[in-house]
Amino acid sequence: MTDTLIDRRELAFQLYDMQNVESLCERSEYADHSRETFESALDTAEQIAKELFAPHNRLADEQEPTFDGKTVSMRPEVKVAFDAVAEAGFIAGREDYELGGMQLPESVMSACMSLFTAANPSTAAYPFLTMAAAGVVKNFASATLREQFLPKMLAGRFTGTMALTEPHAGSSLADIRTKAVLADDGTYRIQGNKVFISGGDHELSDNIVHLVLAKIEGAPVGVKGISLFLVPKFLLDENGEPAQRNDVALAGLFHKLGYRGTTSTALNFGENNQCVGYLIGEPHRGLSYMFQMMNEARLGVGMGGAAIGYRGYQLALDYAKGRPQGRLPSASDPSTDPVAIINHADVKRMLLAQKAYAEGALSLCFYGARLIDDAHTASGSEKEQAQLILDLLTPILKAWPSEFGPKANDLAIQVHGGAGYTREYDAELCWRDNRLNPIHEGTNGIQSLDLLGRKVWQQQGQGLQLLHKTMMDTIANSHEQFALWGEQLKQTLGKIAQVTTVIAKHIQKDPDHGLANSHAYLSMLGHTVVAWLWLKQANVAQQKMSQVKTPQERAFYAGKIQAAQYFYVWELPLVERDVAVLLSMDGTCISMQEDWF
Amino acid sequence: MTDTLIDRRELAFQLYDMQNVESLCERSEYADHSRETFESALDTAEQIAKELFAPHNRLADEQEPTFDGKTVSMRPEVKVAFDAVAEAGFIAGREDYELGGMQLPESVMSACMSLFTAANPSTAAYPFLTMAAAGVVKNFASATLREQFLPKMLAGRFTGTMALTEPHAGSSLADIRTKAVLADDGTYRIQGNKVFISGGDHELSDNIVHLVLAKIEGAPVGVKGISLFLVPKFLLDENGEPAQRNDVALAGLFHKLGYRGTTSTALNFGENNQCVGYLIGEPHRGLSYMFQMMNEARLGVGMGGAAIGYRGYQLALDYAKGRPQGRLPSASDPSTDPVAIINHADVKRMLLAQKAYAEGALSLCFYGARLIDDAHTASGSEKEQAQLILDLLTPILKAWPSEFGPKANDLAIQVHGGAGYTREYDAELCWRDNRLNPIHEGTNGIQSLDLLGRKVWQQQGQGLQLLHKTMMDTIANSHEQFALWGEQLKQTLGKIAQVTTVIAKHIQKDPDHGLANSHAYLSMLGHTVVAWLWLKQANVAQQKMSQVKTPQERAFYAGKIQAAQYFYVWELPLVERDVAVLLSMDGTCISMQEDWF
Repeated sequence: MTDTLIDRRELAFQLYDMQNVESLCERSEYADHSRETFESALDTAEQIAKELFAPHNRLADEQEPTFDGKTVSMRPEVKVAFDAVAEAGFIAGREDYELGGMQLPESVMSACMSLFTAANPSTAAYPFLTMAAAGVVKNFASATLREQFLPKMLAGRFTGTMALTEPHAGSSLADIRTKAVLADDGTYRIQGNKVFISGGDHELSDNIVHLVLAKIEGAPVGVKGISLFLVPKFLLDENGEPAQRNDVALAGLFHKLGYRGTTSTALNFGENNQCVGYLIGEPHRGLSYMFQMMNEARLGVGMGGAAIGYRGYQLALDYAKGRPQGRLPSASDPSTDPVAIINHADVKRMLLAQKAYAEGALSLCFYGARLIDDAHTASGSEKEQAQLILDLLTPILKAWPSEFGPKANDLAIQVHGGAGYTREYDAELCWRDNRLNPIHEGTNGIQSLDLLGRKVWQQQGQGLQLLHKTMMDTIANSHEQFALWGEQLKQTLGKIAQVTTVIAKHIQKDPDHGLANSHAYLSMLGHTVVAWLWLKQANVAQQKMSQVKTPQERAFYAGKIQAAQYFYVWELPLVERDVAVLLSMDGTCISMQEDWF
Repeated sequence: MTDTLIDRRELAFQLYDMQNVESLCERSEYADHSRETFESALDTAEQIAKELFAPHNRLADEQEPTFDGKTVSMRPEVKVAFDAVAEAGFIAGREDYELGGMQLPESVMSACMSLFTAANPSTAAYPFLTMAAAGVVKNFASATLREQFLPKMLAGRFTGTMALTEPHAGSSLADIRTKAVLADDGTYRIQGNKVFISGGDHELSDNIVHLVLAKIEGAPVGVKGISLFLVPKFLLDENGEPAQRNDVALAGLFHKLGYRGTTSTALNFGENNQCVGYLIGEPHRGLSYMFQMMNEARLGVGMGGAAIGYRGYQLALDYAKGRPQGRLPSASDPSTDPVAIINHADVKRMLLAQKAYAEGALSLCFYGARLIDDAHTASGSEKEQAQLILDLLTPILKAWPSEFGPKANDLAIQVHGGAGYTREYDAELCWRDNRLNPIHEGTNGIQSLDLLGRKVWQQQGQGLQLLHKTMMDTIANSHEQFALWGEQLKQTLGKIAQVTTVIAKHIQKDPDHGLANSHAYLSMLGHTVVAWLWLKQANVAQQKMSQVKTPQERAFYAGKIQAAQYFYVWELPLVERDVAVLLSMDGTCISMQEDWF
């Protein structure tokens, strides 16, 4: 099997050619950085990914973590990999120098993380969860809590979790029942049950910092009564070291389809009424804190979908090049040698679709990462505009790659034929791992409701207008040879505007019907944005083509243009169905009755 | 979890209302049968499926067969289930009374088998493979071989396999290297290696009858030099009982993504040059014998895709009805009780899509089964016409259900949310099991080449013309309220004719380009045929609606009409993309170069 995770040529194209990440170095935050320091971070990430993540990817799947009632055991390679990521500084990679960080932009951190995920998604989850939890502690916890927990989290000595979901309430956070009671010492006693908590128990770190959503006694009903608590597995002693066990018990591990190396836990908080929790920020504002982190975590999920999709594509490509079988219809004489299957038109179709999905998803995620960088460190209207588009696109950054990454993996299995159905090849492992991404951090159905029920209308719809304008600018500045694609995209944009107007009229008076086809809206806008990014990729490739020095470079750019063509001929037309469903306010699904099923 | 496998109401609708299977009883072959005897066979099958197949479905996945170098071990429940199927007479279910059979039509046998597959696909594979192999022995083997092997196969004492695939040649049978040398006693010595042989070793039966493709020394190159051999695991003694071990060795078991209870084997024939094989039929005609069986096996694969798709739909439906979570957009007050998730529009969409795929696939497979019955037992032009359409549609009978059954299973996981990603629920097991169906018995890519490279043009294209006419008849006789769907279907049929004419022009002079988009052709025709069958289902439902006696019956027919509407609004329009690609003879995929990937 090939050891290519995400081709560095591809990462460089997305970072430098597409997103011009070098220009970030002009900002004071990144003034010490340069393409060289970015590449050096990527070199380190790639080396760790190849040497310490990839080799136990299959092993961690075959020998998933176990719980003997006291301790969770897992393959020892996981801790080695986790420690290497921490020691190389990646958990603090985004953070300021004063926190011991590398002060790297999100774009570059995303690229580094994509390498870990492509190599071994379930081991990568541990540092990722810790980074996300550390971000919440940094931004919202009191100075005391920050001091106690943040440095150890950023160093990888403490890991983190996000404890939102409860058995009776998955997506519906309004209904959580975990409660918090103020104790005399100003801390809280937490009581409740959480499920599907990734990384909720293990022996990888000295302590686990759970960020727990709970309701303080007497809080308002619904999401407005949710507070956020820091609940450590071990309470700290006077030296800040983990000491007494807190009243958090592992009730059991879930056994999953994929991502098996990541413990997914059921946790009981306060079985003995002794679970100490520390309030983060103000009471009842927990959800907004969690969501600031969650929105960026959603880009992480999208990047996961893209990275695993891309890894599967590389596996299929490698197999197709090396597997001789059959002959072309025009030269079917059985006395001649068979050709490698990459020569068969239908295999090319499956590989080209994977390329279009995986590299399209990568380009979407790197666009999202650049928006985060701009929302954080640009100034004036550039900053505002980045935030506007980022808010609008967050559901798509999560949902599109997590839908099309797995589709790519499905095709990767198919390219392998019978071999793809065996566990001797990793295409099936990619497919199983990637199946989590459309579900966690808000199912794609929830993303579609977030998009059409909220994001499209925020700030009087300025986000969508700005995105529209951005895409029209690309069309106007495209190479002449892509004019037809530009016209096709322009027409689609017109239809999206029309659809949005129609829905705006209905959504007020009948929100159920107005939102009924939200998934079609998500698909339509997602496919359109990716089509736009493929036009941009083709434009960049065309421009670079005139300066190429090697046949390899020429082939790389030619491939980009061909994949863009694939997207315009084979993919964008599928949006027509969504447009038709949405324009007609089709009621087929919503009018289906329970007893008719 | 619900114990519904395939709802008997649904099976009755497909068999009696759609395919009028009762009318088969007018033919002499089925004169002893009636709806009552058919239902009695189904009752028996359902009981065995529920009591002996379903309970170990998960167990057989978790504890897959093992090989200690001498013997294959597996869960004991598999043999109990296999024996029950044999004892109930199902292995001989299709066969004549004189062979101890039940002389049941294919339509009814398919329905019985769909229940076994829905309950436990990997255990169901053992009787299925035996039936298929027995069919070849019956039709093509010498009287002596038939006498020796057939009764024991039909009784389930001997099981069967199909040994086609070799390590270096998966789909490319022209390249097989297994060789056969004539011995002095008139038998052959077989030498070669076969892989992915399902049921290739186990202890379920007293003997295993391998049907092996091999080339006799000096045979023509390519598929015209392939002969078929019967190679038993144990040679028979003078009493016809298994005695000496033949020189067939199990080299190892493949470890698969799903279908884990079915052994998938690598077999070495003639390691000691002692492997005895008996020629079936004439030399060099092996492939045509195998394909007569294979074509009907392809319907079996389609039915597998449909049955597992349907089972997953029932699991998702059951979960969606019983899982309270969230509220409707129009009534989001968090102090009110949450609703069952089946009330959410996007969950309805996912369930309706599953219904449209699974019941559409079932209707396609039962149409196929009825064609087989007519090709076997009708007379005159009815028989000829059935054979014509059956030949044309065989690639679609295999490919469409095996593509859309797994799509339904993907949605079943999504409806379950986080629970769907755990192995505590069976949606993920359905999804893994069903992933085999697009691969085996000829990948769906191979099916598309068979369709566009061969079947469409057979008999001067009479099959397609006849299918066209059949569909136009349905349109002409549709209920008025479905006139728009009829019009939509008619327009699609016009486009298919146009596309076919365009391809006909190109395929002679440039077969590579002419066949390049064969998968799009398969998708286009497959979706159109299923749309036609949904119009038929709606027509039947509408007609029955006037005679309903209970609210349950009314709901059943209303659901059929709503699913048909779903197919016309959400699915059939997707064919436009395929039409456009095909009409323009799009060269995007075929012109992609290896080094551009």
